[in-house]
Amino acid sequence: MRIKDLNKQEAIIEATVLLVNEIGFVSSSVSKIAKKAGVSPATIYIYYKNKDDLLVSTYVEIKKKMSVALLEGFDDSKPFRDILQNVWKKGFKFISKNQSLYQYSEQFSNSPYSDLVNHAELEKHFEPLITVLQKGIEQKVIKDVPFDILATFIFYPIMVMSNPKMCKTLVLNEETIETGFSLAWDAIKL
Amino acid sequence: MRIKDLNKQEAIIEATVLLVNEIGFVSSSVSKIAKKAGVSPATIYIYYKNKDDLLVSTYVEIKKKMSVALLEGFDDSKPFRDILQNVWKKGFKFISKNQSLYQYSEQFSNSPYSDLVNHAELEKHFEPLITVLQKGIEQKVIKDVPFDILATFIFYPIMVMSNPKMCKTLVLNEETIETGFSLAWDAIKL
Repeated sequence: MRIKDLNKQEAIIEATVLLVNEIGFVSSSVSKIAKKAGVSPATIYIYYKNKDDLLVSTYVEIKKKMSVALLEGFDDSKPFRDILQNVWKKGFKFISKNQSLYQYSEQFSNSPYSDLVNHAELEKHFEPLITVLQKGIEQKVIKDVPFDILATFIFYPIMVMSNPKMCKTLVLNEETIETGFSLAWDAIKL
Repeated sequence: MRIKDLNKQEAIIEATVLLVNEIGFVSSSVSKIAKKAGVSPATIYIYYKNKDDLLVSTYVEIKKKMSVALLEGFDDSKPFRDILQNVWKKGFKFISKNQSLYQYSEQFSNSPYSDLVNHAELEKHFEPLITVLQKGIEQKVIKDVPFDILATFIFYPIMVMSNPKMCKTLVLNEETIETGFSLAWDAIKL
Protein backbone atom coordinates (compact mmCIF):
# COMPACT_ATOMS: atom_id res chain seq x y z
CA MET A 1 0.00 0.00 0.00
CA ARG A 2 1.31 3.45 -0.87
CA ILE A 3 1.43 6.30 1.56
CA LYS A 4 -0.87 9.05 0.39
CA ASP A 5 0.97 12.22 -0.44
CA LEU A 6 -0.85 15.34 0.73
CA ASN A 7 0.90 17.71 -1.66
CA LYS A 8 0.01 15.54 -4.61
CA GLN A 9 -3.58 15.37 -3.45
CA GLU A 10 -3.68 19.15 -3.16
CA ALA A 11 -2.26 19.50 -6.65
CA ILE A 12 -4.98 17.16 -7.96
CA ILE A 13 -7.74 19.17 -6.26
CA GLU A 14 -6.31 22.43 -7.57
CA ALA A 15 -6.10 21.00 -11.09
CA THR A 16 -9.69 19.72 -10.84
CA VAL A 17 -10.94 23.16 -9.82
CA LEU A 18 -9.03 24.97 -12.56
CA LEU A 19 -9.94 22.55 -15.34
CA VAL A 20 -13.63 22.36 -14.43
CA ASN A 21 -13.81 26.16 -14.24
CA GLU A 22 -12.24 26.30 -17.69
CA ILE A 23 -14.06 23.59 -19.63
CA GLY A 24 -16.92 22.38 -17.42
CA PHE A 25 -17.72 19.10 -15.64
CA VAL A 26 -18.65 17.03 -18.66
CA SER A 27 -15.49 17.71 -20.69
CA SER A 28 -13.16 17.34 -17.70
CA SER A 29 -11.66 13.85 -17.62
CA VAL A 30 -9.35 12.13 -15.15
CA SER A 31 -6.58 12.06 -17.75
CA LYS A 32 -6.87 15.80 -18.49
CA ILE A 33 -6.91 16.57 -14.75
CA ALA A 34 -3.87 14.35 -14.22
CA LYS A 35 -2.02 16.18 -16.97
CA LYS A 36 -2.83 19.56 -15.44
CA ALA A 37 -1.78 18.38 -11.97
CA GLY A 38 1.47 16.95 -13.30
CA VAL A 39 0.72 13.43 -12.06
CA SER A 40 -0.18 10.19 -13.81
CA PRO A 41 -3.85 9.13 -14.04
CA ALA A 42 -2.88 6.09 -11.93
CA THR A 43 -1.90 8.47 -9.11
CA ILE A 44 -5.40 9.98 -9.14
CA TYR A 45 -6.88 6.49 -8.81
CA ILE A 46 -4.88 5.99 -5.59
CA TYR A 47 -6.95 8.69 -3.95
CA TYR A 48 -10.24 8.61 -5.84
CA LYS A 49 -12.40 5.80 -7.15
CA ASN A 50 -13.34 7.57 -10.38
CA LYS A 51 -14.13 10.94 -11.93
CA ASP A 52 -17.38 11.34 -9.97
CA ASP A 53 -15.60 10.63 -6.69
CA LEU A 54 -12.90 13.18 -7.57
CA LEU A 55 -15.44 15.89 -8.46
CA VAL A 56 -17.53 15.25 -5.35
CA SER A 57 -14.50 15.07 -3.02
CA THR A 58 -13.20 18.34 -4.43
CA TYR A 59 -16.54 19.99 -3.67
CA VAL A 60 -16.59 18.55 -0.15
CA GLU A 61 -13.04 19.82 0.47
CA ILE A 62 -14.04 23.31 -0.64
CA LYS A 63 -17.11 23.33 1.61
CA LYS A 64 -15.01 22.19 4.57
CA LYS A 65 -12.51 24.98 3.92
CA MET A 66 -15.40 27.40 3.71
CA SER A 67 -16.86 26.21 7.02
CA VAL A 68 -13.49 26.71 8.74
CA ALA A 69 -13.28 30.24 7.30
CA LEU A 70 -16.86 31.13 8.28
CA LEU A 71 -16.33 29.94 11.85
CA GLU A 72 -13.06 31.81 12.37
CA GLY A 73 -13.45 33.92 15.53
CA PHE A 74 -16.83 32.34 16.23
CA ASP A 75 -17.88 33.27 19.77
CA ASP A 76 -21.34 32.16 20.85
CA SER A 77 -21.22 34.24 24.02
CA LYS A 78 -21.76 37.32 21.82
CA PRO A 79 -25.17 38.70 20.77
CA PHE A 80 -26.74 36.86 17.80
CA ARG A 81 -26.39 39.89 15.54
CA ASP A 82 -22.64 40.13 16.22
CA ILE A 83 -22.10 36.40 15.70
CA LEU A 84 -23.89 36.48 12.35
CA GLN A 85 -22.21 39.68 11.25
CA ASN A 86 -18.84 38.04 11.88
CA VAL A 87 -19.88 35.02 9.77
CA TRP A 88 -21.10 37.37 7.04
CA LYS A 89 -17.78 39.25 6.91
CA LYS A 90 -15.78 36.02 6.94
CA GLY A 91 -17.91 34.71 4.07
CA PHE A 92 -17.09 37.67 1.83
CA LYS A 93 -13.43 37.44 2.79
CA PHE A 94 -13.28 33.74 1.91
CA ILE A 95 -14.96 34.20 -1.45
CA SER A 96 -12.83 37.18 -2.47
CA LYS A 97 -9.65 35.27 -1.58
CA ASN A 98 -10.80 31.99 -3.18
CA GLN A 99 -12.57 32.99 -6.37
CA SER A 100 -11.77 29.78 -8.24
CA LEU A 101 -12.93 27.53 -5.37
CA TYR A 102 -16.11 29.59 -5.13
CA GLN A 103 -16.73 29.37 -8.88
CA TYR A 104 -16.29 25.60 -8.76
CA SER A 105 -18.65 25.17 -5.82
CA GLU A 106 -21.34 27.39 -7.39
CA GLN A 107 -21.21 25.37 -10.61
CA PHE A 108 -21.08 22.10 -8.73
CA SER A 109 -24.04 22.78 -6.45
CA ASN A 110 -26.15 23.60 -9.52
CA SER A 111 -25.07 20.45 -11.35
CA PRO A 112 -26.47 16.90 -11.20
CA TYR A 113 -23.25 15.86 -9.36
CA SER A 114 -24.65 17.65 -6.32
CA ASP A 115 -26.99 14.66 -5.83
CA LEU A 116 -23.96 12.46 -5.12
CA VAL A 117 -22.95 14.48 -2.04
CA ASN A 118 -23.70 13.27 1.48
CA HIS A 119 -25.28 16.57 2.47
CA ALA A 120 -26.14 15.48 6.03
CA GLU A 121 -22.48 14.65 6.63
CA LEU A 122 -21.38 17.95 5.10
CA GLU A 123 -23.83 19.99 7.16
CA LYS A 124 -22.11 18.85 10.36
CA HIS A 125 -19.30 21.28 9.54
CA PHE A 126 -21.80 24.12 9.61
CA GLU A 127 -23.57 22.99 12.78
CA PRO A 128 -22.56 25.96 14.95
CA LEU A 129 -24.35 28.25 12.48
CA ILE A 130 -27.50 26.17 12.62
CA THR A 131 -27.35 26.16 16.42
CA VAL A 132 -27.03 29.96 16.53
CA LEU A 133 -30.19 30.36 14.47
CA GLN A 134 -32.06 27.81 16.60
CA LYS A 135 -31.05 29.60 19.83
CA GLY A 136 -32.05 32.91 18.29
CA ILE A 137 -35.49 31.50 17.53
CA GLU A 138 -35.87 30.07 21.06
CA GLN A 139 -34.89 33.41 22.59
CA LYS A 140 -37.35 35.21 20.30
CA VAL A 141 -34.67 37.33 18.64
CA ILE A 142 -34.93 35.58 15.27
CA LYS A 143 -38.13 34.79 13.38
CA ASP A 144 -39.51 31.29 13.83
CA VAL A 145 -39.59 30.29 10.16
CA PRO A 146 -38.14 27.23 8.34
CA PHE A 147 -34.35 27.06 8.44
CA ASP A 148 -34.10 27.19 4.62
CA ILE A 149 -35.91 30.53 4.59
CA LEU A 150 -33.57 31.98 7.22
CA ALA A 151 -30.57 30.71 5.21
CA THR A 152 -32.01 32.31 2.06
CA PHE A 153 -31.74 35.72 3.72
CA ILE A 154 -28.77 35.44 6.08
CA PHE A 155 -26.32 33.18 4.18
CA TYR A 156 -27.19 33.01 0.45
CA PRO A 157 -27.02 36.79 -0.06
CA ILE A 158 -23.27 36.46 0.57
CA MET A 159 -23.10 34.29 -2.58
CA VAL A 160 -25.38 36.58 -4.59
CA MET A 161 -23.59 39.80 -3.65
CA SER A 162 -20.20 38.16 -4.33
CA ASN A 163 -21.30 37.03 -7.78
CA PRO A 164 -20.45 39.71 -10.37
CA LYS A 165 -22.84 37.98 -12.80
CA MET A 166 -25.72 38.63 -10.40
CA CYS A 167 -24.63 41.94 -8.88
CA LYS A 168 -23.21 43.61 -11.95
CA THR A 169 -22.73 47.16 -10.73
CA LEU A 170 -22.16 46.55 -7.02
CA VAL A 171 -18.74 47.51 -5.66
CA LEU A 172 -17.96 45.20 -2.77
CA ASN A 173 -16.27 47.02 0.09
CA GLU A 174 -16.63 47.28 3.86
CA GLU A 175 -19.53 49.69 3.53
CA THR A 176 -21.63 47.73 1.01
CA ILE A 177 -20.95 44.47 2.86
CA GLU A 178 -22.19 46.10 6.09
CA THR A 179 -25.24 47.53 4.29
CA GLY A 180 -26.03 44.07 2.95
CA PHE A 181 -25.76 42.63 6.44
CA SER A 182 -28.15 45.20 7.88
CA LEU A 183 -30.77 44.13 5.29
CA ALA A 184 -30.12 40.46 6.06
CA TRP A 185 -30.50 41.06 9.78
CA ASP A 186 -33.70 43.10 9.29
CA ALA A 187 -35.07 40.16 7.28
CA ILE A 188 -34.54 37.52 9.96
CA LYS A 189 -34.85 39.45 13.24
CA LEU A 190 -38.12 39.41 15.12
CA MET B 1 -35.03 34.61 -48.59
CA ARG B 2 -37.04 32.15 -46.55
CA ILE B 3 -39.86 33.16 -44.30
CA LYS B 4 -38.98 32.40 -40.68
CA ASP B 5 -41.21 29.74 -39.17
CA LEU B 6 -42.17 30.50 -35.59
CA ASN B 7 -43.04 26.91 -34.68
CA LYS B 8 -39.73 25.66 -35.96
CA GLN B 9 -37.95 28.36 -34.00
CA GLU B 10 -39.83 27.35 -30.85
CA ALA B 11 -38.89 23.72 -31.41
CA ILE B 12 -35.25 24.74 -31.72
CA ILE B 13 -35.36 26.73 -28.48
CA GLU B 14 -37.07 23.88 -26.67
CA ALA B 15 -34.49 21.40 -27.96
CA THR B 16 -31.66 23.73 -26.90
CA VAL B 17 -33.05 23.98 -23.37
CA LEU B 18 -33.57 20.24 -23.02
CA LEU B 19 -30.21 19.22 -24.47
CA VAL B 20 -28.21 21.78 -22.47
CA ASN B 21 -29.99 20.72 -19.27
CA GLU B 22 -29.08 17.12 -20.07
CA ILE B 23 -25.47 17.33 -21.24
CA GLY B 24 -24.30 20.91 -20.55
CA PHE B 25 -23.26 23.85 -22.72
CA VAL B 26 -19.90 22.54 -23.87
CA SER B 27 -21.13 19.18 -25.17
CA SER B 28 -24.25 20.61 -26.84
CA SER B 29 -23.61 21.17 -30.54
CA VAL B 30 -25.78 22.68 -33.28
CA SER B 31 -26.06 19.27 -34.95
CA LYS B 32 -27.22 17.54 -31.74
CA ILE B 33 -29.72 20.33 -31.08
CA ALA B 34 -30.99 20.08 -34.68
CA LYS B 35 -31.48 16.33 -34.27
CA LYS B 36 -33.43 16.83 -31.03
CA ALA B 37 -35.59 19.56 -32.60
CA GLY B 38 -36.29 17.42 -35.68
CA VAL B 39 -34.84 19.98 -38.09
CA SER B 40 -31.70 20.10 -40.19
CA PRO B 41 -28.63 21.99 -38.92
CA ALA B 42 -29.08 24.29 -41.95
CA THR B 43 -32.48 25.32 -40.58
CA ILE B 44 -30.88 26.42 -37.32
CA TYR B 45 -28.43 28.59 -39.26
CA ILE B 46 -31.38 30.42 -40.86
CA TYR B 47 -32.26 31.79 -37.44
CA TYR B 48 -28.95 31.85 -35.58
CA LYS B 49 -25.42 32.81 -36.59
CA ASN B 50 -23.77 30.01 -34.64
CA LYS B 51 -23.93 27.95 -31.43
CA ASP B 52 -23.11 30.94 -29.21
CA ASP B 53 -25.86 33.00 -30.82
CA LEU B 54 -28.34 30.14 -30.32
CA LEU B 55 -27.42 29.70 -26.65
CA VAL B 56 -27.55 33.43 -25.94
CA SER B 57 -30.82 33.95 -27.85
CA THR B 58 -32.41 31.07 -25.94
CA TYR B 59 -31.44 32.70 -22.65
CA VAL B 60 -32.76 36.09 -23.78
CA GLU B 61 -36.07 34.45 -24.83
CA ILE B 62 -36.41 32.86 -21.39
CA LYS B 63 -35.69 36.11 -19.58
CA LYS B 64 -38.27 37.92 -21.74
CA LYS B 65 -40.87 35.27 -20.93
CA MET B 66 -39.98 35.64 -17.27
CA SER B 67 -40.37 39.43 -17.39
CA VAL B 68 -43.84 39.05 -18.94
CA ALA B 69 -44.82 36.58 -16.20
CA LEU B 70 -43.46 38.77 -13.39
CA LEU B 71 -45.32 41.83 -14.65
CA GLU B 72 -48.67 40.08 -15.05
CA GLY B 73 -51.25 42.09 -13.11
CA PHE B 74 -48.67 44.80 -12.43
CA ASP B 75 -50.48 47.86 -11.06
CA ASP B 76 -48.31 50.74 -9.93
CA SER B 77 -51.22 52.55 -8.31
CA LYS B 78 -51.03 49.97 -5.49
CA PRO B 79 -48.81 50.28 -2.38
CA PHE B 80 -45.18 49.22 -2.96
CA ARG B 81 -45.53 46.20 -0.69
CA ASP B 82 -48.51 44.89 -2.70
CA ILE B 83 -46.80 45.48 -6.05
CA LEU B 84 -43.70 43.59 -4.94
CA GLN B 85 -45.70 40.81 -3.31
CA ASN B 86 -47.51 40.26 -6.61
CA VAL B 87 -44.16 40.09 -8.47
CA TRP B 88 -42.87 37.63 -5.84
CA LYS B 89 -45.88 35.33 -6.26
CA LYS B 90 -45.70 35.49 -10.06
CA GLY B 91 -42.00 34.62 -9.89
CA PHE B 92 -42.63 31.41 -7.96
CA LYS B 93 -45.49 30.52 -10.29
CA PHE B 94 -43.34 31.01 -13.38
CA ILE B 95 -40.48 28.91 -12.03
CA SER B 96 -42.71 26.07 -10.85
CA LYS B 97 -44.41 25.94 -14.26
CA ASN B 98 -41.19 26.30 -16.27
CA GLN B 99 -38.62 24.20 -14.42
CA SER B 100 -36.54 23.39 -17.49
CA LEU B 101 -36.39 27.04 -18.63
CA TYR B 102 -35.42 28.02 -15.11
CA GLN B 103 -32.70 25.36 -14.95
CA TYR B 104 -31.28 26.53 -18.27
CA SER B 105 -31.25 30.18 -17.23
CA GLU B 106 -29.59 29.43 -13.86
CA GLN B 107 -26.84 27.44 -15.58
CA PHE B 108 -26.48 30.03 -18.31
CA SER B 109 -26.18 33.04 -16.02
CA ASN B 110 -23.37 31.28 -14.12
CA SER B 111 -21.53 30.35 -17.32
CA PRO B 112 -19.03 32.34 -19.39
CA TYR B 113 -21.73 32.65 -22.11
CA SER B 114 -23.42 35.19 -19.84
CA ASP B 115 -20.75 37.71 -20.88
CA LEU B 116 -22.14 37.61 -24.45
CA VAL B 117 -25.55 38.94 -23.39
CA ASN B 118 -26.52 42.56 -23.92
CA HIS B 119 -27.63 43.00 -20.31
CA ALA B 120 -28.61 46.67 -20.68
CA GLU B 121 -30.98 45.71 -23.50
CA LEU B 122 -32.39 42.82 -21.46
CA GLU B 123 -32.93 44.96 -18.37
CA LYS B 124 -35.39 47.12 -20.29
CA HIS B 125 -37.92 44.31 -19.95
CA PHE B 126 -37.65 44.57 -16.18
CA GLU B 127 -37.78 48.37 -16.09
CA PRO B 128 -41.12 48.66 -14.25
CA LEU B 129 -39.59 46.71 -11.35
CA ILE B 130 -36.60 49.01 -11.21
CA THR B 131 -38.91 52.04 -11.30
CA VAL B 132 -40.99 50.69 -8.40
CA LEU B 133 -37.88 50.36 -6.23
CA GLN B 134 -36.70 53.85 -7.21
CA LYS B 135 -40.08 55.38 -6.35
CA GLY B 136 -40.08 53.47 -3.06
CA ILE B 137 -36.70 54.96 -2.22
CA GLU B 138 -37.84 58.49 -3.16
CA GLN B 139 -40.96 58.14 -1.01
CA LYS B 140 -38.85 56.83 1.90
CA VAL B 141 -40.66 53.49 2.05
CA ILE B 142 -37.69 51.47 0.77
CA LYS B 143 -34.09 51.72 1.99
CA ASP B 144 -31.79 53.94 -0.06
CA VAL B 145 -29.14 51.32 -0.82
CA PRO B 146 -27.58 50.20 -4.15
CA PHE B 147 -30.07 48.55 -6.49
CA ASP B 148 -28.08 45.27 -6.56
CA ILE B 149 -28.43 44.97 -2.77
CA LEU B 150 -32.20 45.51 -2.97
CA ALA B 151 -32.42 42.88 -5.73
CA THR B 152 -30.38 40.47 -3.61
CA PHE B 153 -33.14 40.53 -0.99
CA ILE B 154 -36.33 41.14 -2.95
CA PHE B 155 -35.77 39.20 -6.22
CA TYR B 156 -32.95 36.64 -5.85
CA PRO B 157 -34.56 34.85 -2.87
CA ILE B 158 -37.24 33.70 -5.34
CA MET B 159 -34.50 31.80 -7.20
CA VAL B 160 -32.90 30.46 -4.02
CA MET B 161 -36.15 29.28 -2.45
CA SER B 162 -37.23 27.69 -5.75
CA ASN B 163 -33.95 25.80 -6.05
CA PRO B 164 -34.26 22.38 -4.36
CA LYS B 165 -30.46 22.12 -4.37
CA MET B 166 -30.27 25.21 -2.17
CA CYS B 167 -33.43 24.80 -0.10
CA LYS B 168 -33.37 21.06 0.41
CA THR B 169 -36.09 20.62 3.01
CA LEU B 170 -38.34 23.56 2.19
CA VAL B 171 -41.84 22.74 0.98
CA LEU B 172 -42.96 25.51 -1.34
CA ASN B 173 -46.59 26.43 -0.83
CA GLU B 174 -48.66 29.58 -0.43
CA GLU B 175 -47.69 29.86 3.24
CA THR B 176 -43.92 29.46 2.86
CA ILE B 177 -43.91 31.76 -0.18
CA GLU B 178 -45.73 34.40 1.88
CA THR B 179 -43.35 33.90 4.81
CA GLY B 180 -40.41 34.36 2.46
CA PHE B 181 -41.94 37.56 1.15
CA SER B 182 -42.42 38.99 4.63
CA LEU B 183 -38.68 38.48 5.28
CA ALA B 184 -37.81 40.04 1.91
CA TRP B 185 -40.01 43.04 2.64
CA ASP B 186 -38.58 43.47 6.15
CA ALA B 187 -35.12 43.48 4.56
CA ILE B 188 -35.78 46.30 2.11
CA LYS B 189 -38.39 48.47 3.87
CA LEU B 190 -37.29 51.56 5.74
